Amino acid sequence: MSYPDMMKQMAERQKKIIENMNKIKYKISVFSGKGGVGKSVVTANLAAAIAGLDQGGVGILDSDFTGPSIPRMMGLDRSQLEVVGGRLIPPQGAAGVKVVSMAFLLPEEKTPVIWRGPIKKIALEQLLSSSDWQGTDYLIFDLPPGTGDEALNIMQVLPGFDGFIVVTVPTEISRASVSKSIGFARKMHAKVLGVIENMSGHVCPHCGNDNEIFVGNGGELLATEMKVPLLGKIPLDHRLSETSDQGVPMVLKYPDAPASKSLVDIAERIVESLK
Amino acid sequence: MSYPDMMKQMAERQKKIIENMNKIKYKISVFSGKGGVGKSVVTANLAAAIAGLDQGGVGILDSDFTGPSIPRMMGLDRSQLEVVGGRLIPPQGAAGVKVVSMAFLLPEEKTPVIWRGPIKKIALEQLLSSSDWQGTDYLIFDLPPGTGDEALNIMQVLPGFDGFIVVTVPTEISRASVSKSIGFARKMHAKVLGVIENMSGHVCPHCGNDNEIFVGNGGELLATEMKVPLLGKIPLDHRLSETSDQGVPMVLKYPDAPASKSLVDIAERIVESLK
Repeated sequence: MSYPDMMKQMAERQKKIIENMNKIKYKISVFSGKGGVGKSVVTANLAAAIAGLDQGGVGILDSDFTGPSIPRMMGLDRSQLEVVGGRLIPPQGAAGVKVVSMAFLLPEEKTPVIWRGPIKKIALEQLLSSSDWQGTDYLIFDLPPGTGDEALNIMQVLPGFDGFIVVTVPTEISRASVSKSIGFARKMHAKVLGVIENMSGHVCPHCGNDNEIFVGNGGELLATEMKVPLLGKIPLDHRLSETSDQGVPMVLKYPDAPASKSLVDIAERIVESLK
Repeated sequence: MSYPDMMKQMAERQKKIIENMNKIKYKISVFSGKGGVGKSVVTANLAAAIAGLDQGGVGILDSDFTGPSIPRMMGLDRSQLEVVGGRLIPPQGAAGVKVVSMAFLLPEEKTPVIWRGPIKKIALEQLLSSSDWQGTDYLIFDLPPGTGDEALNIMQVLPGFDGFIVVTVPTEISRASVSKSIGFARKMHAKVLGVIENMSGHVCPHCGNDNEIFVGNGGELLATEMKVPLLGKIPLDHRLSETSDQGVPMVLKYPDAPASKSLVDIAERIVESLK
């Protein structure tokens, strides 16, 4: 391909992304500076909770190239992705949430993704331009942790982005990493809608005592430092990982649990702040 | 710089890396497919535990570009890095462990690292060729999670690499991610020395009951599936995050706690398997 042809193709792809993304009212991203703060579990549960508020259709774009886990958490697998007339039709998982994920495009679950940055960018653009999000009012991006290539790419190609929801855990070291990612979001001129403190205490199911397991006050400190609201705290609950493995978000299966109630409160706050 | 000059410089840098790394008896890497499985906490504690076995000097190379946390966990900060005659002199942290980290080279804690792959590779080569590891027999690499650029880079430039220690948590979704990273390690012809299951249960300090918080049997399943030994299980303990924030690994501060004993057992198994 000649250089002018390549530039033309790039411009066309960018135009398609803008057209495709402009159809969706709200675009937010769940983000963390550090891995394993439960970002994907929070994303899956927030999506189901927002869907339950009946304010419009909800979708998740799982752009984590190295460990995409959203489809499984929403009870989906690759066989449910349809391609019709060159468009990817996202399957509907738990609570009717539409999901597109790199997991659908990977050869098989055990295949490691050893993809360098530029290839990832093209794959992400493909997902953004070719997925059919008809009926989706809220699109949530599950971004990989940190300030690496994927996060950069999303920011470069996504028009009309509403802001980041930052997930952290109580510990001080985690707070420092997340603080960095907020610095990153601001450098990119993106809004931070608020902070969620996950893994915030654990009530012993035997004696009812509330134990700190990850020690600290990271969510509150971070929200204060960054002058953004603390959207809520979610306690550790073994049912969060159990229901993730089962493909049914905890807010649907155990709506009365404190963790579920907290997630629904947070979902309401997010929807409110987007209006 | 002309192309032949650039190639010459690259060859010289690679030669320096080989010379520098050949002085170190054992080079292992703590690795995970998924973030937040406690990889850095495990690395810091294993380093201190190996140092306590009196089998030789121990060092950590913290190659996590997006969230380097090892210095803080070992009680160090950037002011302790010395540069003498163009060589980086790693400061000694808790248990006399020498530490080199990207954290030392970053402008300040809140600065996000938005570095593309090729720049990271050069920075890593710089760390590998210019750090003075005199007296270090065991060098542990704390790699960022996943199968992205950093992991690839380490494998491409590191001669005489002994193998990966894979850290996982009990949940099924985590196991799937880690299984991928083992696939990656094997594709790169690197040995996997074994699996550690972290966050494996929690004993309530009030009633003494053992609660599963992250549900599953991921470490054992993974070790069996991959035909590598399960090196041990480490229970959740709030003192692991507390001591990490304080800069003193838990194995030093609370040597009698079950989590510490498990970490020391694992350190012994690793040292044994390297001989």
